[in-house]
Amino acid sequence: MVTAYVTAPPDEAERIARTLVEERLAACVNRVACESVYRWEGEIHDDEETLLLAKTTDERYDDLKRRVVELHPYDVPCVERFEERDVHEPFATWRDEAVGE
Amino acid sequence: MVTAYVTAPPDEAERIARTLVEERLAACVNRVACESVYRWEGEIHDDEETLLLAKTTDERYDDLKRRVVELHPYDVPCVERFEERDVHEPFATWRDEAVGE
Amino acid sequence: MVTAYVTAPPDEAERIARTLVEERLAACVNRVACESVYRWEGEIHDDEETLLLAKTTDERYDDLKRRVVELHPYDVPCVERFEERDVHEPFATWRDEAVGE
Repeated sequence: MVTAYVTAPPDEAERIARTLVEERLAACVNRVACESVYRWEGEIHDDEETLLLAKTTDERYDDLKRRVVELHPYDVPCVERFEERDVHEPFATWRDEAVGE
Repeated sequence: MVTAYVTAPPDEAERIARTLVEERLAACVNRVACESVYRWEGEIHDDEETLLLAKTTDERYDDLKRRVVELHPYDVPCVERFEERDVHEPFATWRDEAVGE
Repeated sequence: MVTAYVTAPPDEAERIARTLVEERLAACVNRVACESVYRWEGEIHDDEETLLLAKTTDERYDDLKRRVVELHPYDVPCVERFEERDVHEPFATWRDEAVGE
C-alpha cells in the first residue's frame, strides 16, 4: 500500500482531499497544518500550507498523482510516494475496497 | 528502525501514545492534529483525528500493532509501517534501549 | 529522493529549517506542530515539539544529517531518512536544482 505526500495551500486542501476520496483515488486523506520554508527563484519563502497524506494502493497511485497535478493551483506541486509494509489487515482490506471500481 | 503510522480520535490519542511508551513498545510517539476525509459504508466523512507517529524497532513492530488494535476504539484502525534508513546513530541506540527488555 | 524526519523544540524549529534551505541542504522543509511522549532516563515525558520534514536528495542527506546535529540543542536529536518513489517529475527537478551547487 502507498501513502502519497502532497502539500497544498490551506484554502485548497479540503477540496483536493475530498475530490480524491470522491473519485476513489484515495480511501482516506489526513490533512495536517504546516509551515513551509523553501527556495523559489532564488528567494527564500515561508508560507502556511496543508500537508495531505493520502492512503491509496499501488494500482491507484499514478492516477492519483495525475489528478492532484490537475486539481492543484501550483505549477510545481509536491507529490511523492512512500511505501507501507505490514499494514493492519482489516485496514488494508477496507482501503482496497474504498478505491475499488 | 520503524515508524508506525496510526490515526486515533483526539481524546484517545494521548492514552494510546503513553501506553505504548510505558509498555516499551515505542521509544517515542509524536502526536499531530489532523482532519481526515474518508469513505465509510458508502458515505464520505470528515473528522478531526490525531496522527500518532510511533518510533519503534523491527522486533517490536508486531507487538505494537497488536497492542494498538487492542487499545483502539475503532473497528478498523489505521496501523501502517514505514521503514527508516540512516538514522542518526545515537538516536538509534537510545531507541533500542528505550524499547529493550 | 529523500525526506529527512527531524524533531526540534518549537522555538528552534524555524531557525533550523531556514538554515537547511539557506545552505542548500534541503529544497523545502515542512514544519508541523506536535506533542511527543517519550522515555528519557527512566522517566516518561510529554513535550511540545515541531516536526521538520526536510525534502532533500540522496547526495545531500549525509550533509543535512551532520548539519542538523550541529544546529540542534538536543544531545540525541531524532534524524531519520525515508525513501520516496515516483515523485512528480517537475518537483523532483526543482529539488535537484534547489540543493545543487
